[in-house]
Amino acid sequence: MEDLLTQTNYAIDTFYFLVMGVLVMFMACGFSMLEAGMIRAKNTSEILTKNVALYSISCIMYLLVGYYIMYMNNAEGGWLPNFGWLIGAENTTEEIVSGEAGGVATDHSERSDYFFQVVFVATAMSIVSGAVAERMKLWSFLIFAVVMTGLIYPVQGMWTWGGGALANPPEWMAWFVGRTDEGAPIGYSDFAGSGIVHMCGAAAALAGVILLGPRAGKYGPNGHVNALPGCNMPLATLGMFVLWFGWFGFNGGSELKLSNVDEANAVAQVFVNTNIAAAGGLIAALILARLWFGKADLTMALNGALAGLVAITADPLSPPAFWAMIIGAVGGLIVVGSIVLLDKVRIDDPVGAISVHGTCGIWGIIAVCFNNGDASFTGQIYGILGIFLWVFIASGIIWYILKVTMGIRVSEEEEMSGVDIAEVGIEAYPEFQQAA
Amino acid sequence: MEDLLTQTNYAIDTFYFLVMGVLVMFMACGFSMLEAGMIRAKNTSEILTKNVALYSISCIMYLLVGYYIMYMNNAEGGWLPNFGWLIGAENTTEEIVSGEAGGVATDHSERSDYFFQVVFVATAMSIVSGAVAERMKLWSFLIFAVVMTGLIYPVQGMWTWGGGALANPPEWMAWFVGRTDEGAPIGYSDFAGSGIVHMCGAAAALAGVILLGPRAGKYGPNGHVNALPGCNMPLATLGMFVLWFGWFGFNGGSELKLSNVDEANAVAQVFVNTNIAAAGGLIAALILARLWFGKADLTMALNGALAGLVAITADPLSPPAFWAMIIGAVGGLIVVGSIVLLDKVRIDDPVGAISVHGTCGIWGIIAVCFNNGDASFTGQIYGILGIFLWVFIASGIIWYILKVTMGIRVSEEEEMSGVDIAEVGIEAYPEFQQAA
Amino acid sequence: MEDLLTQTNYAIDTFYFLVMGVLVMFMACGFSMLEAGMIRAKNTSEILTKNVALYSISCIMYLLVGYYIMYMNNAEGGWLPNFGWLIGAENTTEEIVSGEAGGVATDHSERSDYFFQVVFVATAMSIVSGAVAERMKLWSFLIFAVVMTGLIYPVQGMWTWGGGALANPPEWMAWFVGRTDEGAPIGYSDFAGSGIVHMCGAAAALAGVILLGPRAGKYGPNGHVNALPGCNMPLATLGMFVLWFGWFGFNGGSELKLSNVDEANAVAQVFVNTNIAAAGGLIAALILARLWFGKADLTMALNGALAGLVAITADPLSPPAFWAMIIGAVGGLIVVGSIVLLDKVRIDDPVGAISVHGTCGIWGIIAVCFNNGDASFTGQIYGILGIFLWVFIASGIIWYILKVTMGIRVSEEEEMSGVDIAEVGIEAYPEFQQAA
Repeated sequence: MEDLLTQTNYAIDTFYFLVMGVLVMFMACGFSMLEAGMIRAKNTSEILTKNVALYSISCIMYLLVGYYIMYMNNAEGGWLPNFGWLIGAENTTEEIVSGEAGGVATDHSERSDYFFQVVFVATAMSIVSGAVAERMKLWSFLIFAVVMTGLIYPVQGMWTWGGGALANPPEWMAWFVGRTDEGAPIGYSDFAGSGIVHMCGAAAALAGVILLGPRAGKYGPNGHVNALPGCNMPLATLGMFVLWFGWFGFNGGSELKLSNVDEANAVAQVFVNTNIAAAGGLIAALILARLWFGKADLTMALNGALAGLVAITADPLSPPAFWAMIIGAVGGLIVVGSIVLLDKVRIDDPVGAISVHGTCGIWGIIAVCFNNGDASFTGQIYGILGIFLWVFIASGIIWYILKVTMGIRVSEEEEMSGVDIAEVGIEAYPEFQQAA
Repeated sequence: MEDLLTQTNYAIDTFYFLVMGVLVMFMACGFSMLEAGMIRAKNTSEILTKNVALYSISCIMYLLVGYYIMYMNNAEGGWLPNFGWLIGAENTTEEIVSGEAGGVATDHSERSDYFFQVVFVATAMSIVSGAVAERMKLWSFLIFAVVMTGLIYPVQGMWTWGGGALANPPEWMAWFVGRTDEGAPIGYSDFAGSGIVHMCGAAAALAGVILLGPRAGKYGPNGHVNALPGCNMPLATLGMFVLWFGWFGFNGGSELKLSNVDEANAVAQVFVNTNIAAAGGLIAALILARLWFGKADLTMALNGALAGLVAITADPLSPPAFWAMIIGAVGGLIVVGSIVLLDKVRIDDPVGAISVHGTCGIWGIIAVCFNNGDASFTGQIYGILGIFLWVFIASGIIWYILKVTMGIRVSEEEEMSGVDIAEVGIEAYPEFQQAA
Repeated sequence: MEDLLTQTNYAIDTFYFLVMGVLVMFMACGFSMLEAGMIRAKNTSEILTKNVALYSISCIMYLLVGYYIMYMNNAEGGWLPNFGWLIGAENTTEEIVSGEAGGVATDHSERSDYFFQVVFVATAMSIVSGAVAERMKLWSFLIFAVVMTGLIYPVQGMWTWGGGALANPPEWMAWFVGRTDEGAPIGYSDFAGSGIVHMCGAAAALAGVILLGPRAGKYGPNGHVNALPGCNMPLATLGMFVLWFGWFGFNGGSELKLSNVDEANAVAQVFVNTNIAAAGGLIAALILARLWFGKADLTMALNGALAGLVAITADPLSPPAFWAMIIGAVGGLIVVGSIVLLDKVRIDDPVGAISVHGTCGIWGIIAVCFNNGDASFTGQIYGILGIFLWVFIASGIIWYILKVTMGIRVSEEEEMSGVDIAEVGIEAYPEFQQAA
């Protein structure tokens, strides 16, 4: 009888993973719509192509090698990838009910775990496409995506969620990160990936943007910044809503288990906090934009919601709802400032991705300390540095190699006439006359 | 052993609430897209801003005070709001398995209940934004949203789902509402909120529209009505589909429990009926529009589906599927007539929200009597009057105060040039040349 | 105690059906957006009207008669439809726990089964609307939809999933299809409907397109093919993502059961394979388009993902993930070739539906043999022929009757000025100036 209940709970937790994973998968759509709405019409087909392709590449690369790199510490068969043949063998019913199952996932299907994880990789990669929009070569970008999703992301994922040196710092780091009550060095704490997913994506994007340079006409002389407004606000708003919707899976699924009272309560808390952090971020950014710029800037509001979501992602479980709202609201304020600041230093990020995912990712990682006794400020800094340096340097090397070999930037003529024609051969809105 | 199964069922019911809640949350996206598609391009960024902000305000206000007002009768700690600090304490595992848990929610997480409920508040508020589109000041609207979601909605919610005087009428109302077999006065019956959510939103919208007046150019002399066609039909259709999709959560989650045979069968019946009522409404409205206007009017078809959904919402459980289809189809016919009629009396509702949610909400509430023996016609009228009068009068007072203080209507020049420029500072489609 | 667990599992499996069904329902939105993005602006309102109406008609017709035809072999009360009154009676709790329940569905709600199935019918019908876009009369199409969803689809569904002669071939077919180890003739194997849903829709579409003829201006003299590019690429991309998202329900729900370790593992495998097949299809089509046409053709990439999804649908359970990726990738290659080939023979399919769902459906059916020992190549051919011939001929007769009675093609003038004005009376984008 108890065996049967074990089976039922296994099925529930597997189903929970799959449903949460489907929500996260849909975030790929959200990023596509957000980015397509925030850029100019002449570059829209190309950014759509990048987005659909990077999601596919993420799935393939993570299946072939990434998942094995990331979880090599847990894998029974060692770290050698089996190139997607089985994603490891599932445990049998007998192993599950007897409690003698090997492998990572003994209370849910390992395949459901892979499915949930793979959509996180794609999220990290999606962040990059927005920041380099309107001027990067399509195929250089896709080659970067192969390396990023097959190697760069999984390595830092191994260091953290994979139980590596950021989650469990070596003894000699204790002077910096402090010690837990049990005496072990305090590790980096990141519930659903403010750093592991979001800041990771932003770091890769930042390296790319620096090597790529700003869009033509973005920065004038004497520090003048030209607005290059997005061409389709309903699309951008749709993207934001889809991301908010998908984020319930992103954070909600990261509890990893649902099938008892405490776990169910935890998942519910995560849902509530995720929602209210986004709401706080949106309202804070909207009010700040109104006060600062004199208008209720919709794009700032959208980025404010996303900033709130990124900020709460590092710990959507510990804070009470009111605190979650505040963490989100601070994220909403930070993102507005960060967007203005990046433009001041001429880092051209058409959709604000580096500010949303990078700056607010860091805020979220630090905010963990306020409510979660298992985290230390220095432990979080240790994680931030570890992830950022690895991703920024590794990405920078790849971007640089791409730059000196096949090139990463389209020609000036192509940029002027739009990358849609040059790269995709299909205009996004061929019938609608565009204003001069 | 039984304790463990109790825990499993608790987890299932919590998960069910969360999944249904996520679907309802996505309705905020549906309303945004529907409204953005149904209005003119020059007012699109503003209505998007209203929609994203009202969803956020709903979440915040309901967390801070609304939820406590609505469920003050059930709350252990009395009605004093704790301002979102914990949304009450969750029951412990021991309390749950021993059956000695206090509070509202003993078979699922209270936080999951809050999450499911909060997205209903936002739905009610979303209805308002459509009706007042293209001419109302942004910040006046948002201040109204604060009062509506923090006070007006929760009070009538307390009277109904909160176990108050509309659900359980006082003795002296028995002459009007009749008595149950047990002798108690028959209360107002509204499964998922045709009245509590939809007519509530429509009543607030109606009060606003009356004080606001019609859009410039909508009504000519001699009763002439000018069509001001929506600018983006795919967007409106997307919105309708998202709402239909989300409605499965709206109605499906309102069964409140899933974890045994009878409850599971009930939830399945609700899904089937919700779907077929929308289908019936769409086809009925499409055929009526074809016969009446000579064309297969897409906007009428979209509103027909929504009318069917609103109509079945008051009781998606009792009717067999065939009846649900008829209830939806009648809703589809009513909505077409109501839209035409409101234009005749110069109530200018750009997206038809008052007809869809108000007129068809009333139809749905009355239709409960046909299949549900626990409802009486007069009991339903009692509920309609109670909700409508409270919301209409309270909203009217707030709208009026806003009108005489900060004003609720944009200037004529702003209306002509579009509220996007005036309020948001961002055009929705800046690159696409618009026809004169 | 065991009775209670039986109830819990019943609830889980019902919930699983409903959640998967909701995902599939959303595919109706995906098809609408995909088709609206892939055609020209002047025909957009009409195709949206077709899509919302066909979904509604599918739900109604399948409720009234289709479901009974399809499952007449299982129904207790014989094949006489009860016209939606109850969709059969649900089993009682006592019948479920005692294991003495009659009817098809004894481990989940029969209504949840109907709900899951009905959205498949709509999917099949959605395929047709894309292929006949931009030139078919609205009401002729809707009448065809009535017959297709009420009769043509259910009959072949009865032959296959309903346990009929394609699933269980008669003895005399054994010479062709071979025999299982137990000695029975090997039946047609189609897990989630590469043939039963997708090729079925494509066959009906093909018959319609042949009788309808190509769009004006599509084919010039000397075999010249004019590109008539889709008007809205973000919309088409949105549609693809929504379909991908919904496909997890389509394939994932077709396992039909979740509530133990083996079933949960199977569902997880289906999710992983569905996802990776789409990814493989997208990348393969993108690379082939780049090599063949010189550009990273976005529409080919989108169709590649859908091709991968269609291809894996016939068996998303048996292959390991790597194989699923290959099956999808081959689908992505096939769809590009098929689209080019159909244009060569002047079969004008504006969105590539016949190639995606027909050609790749056949590929998927055949690919079952590579990994599934229960299928035979000839058994699959037997199924393809059975479904294709029935649907193609029956559809052809209906299309022909419609053609000679009310006509199926709009007039030349209407086609020139766009079917939106003629049929719907509403332009899709009335404010945006269109390029000459």
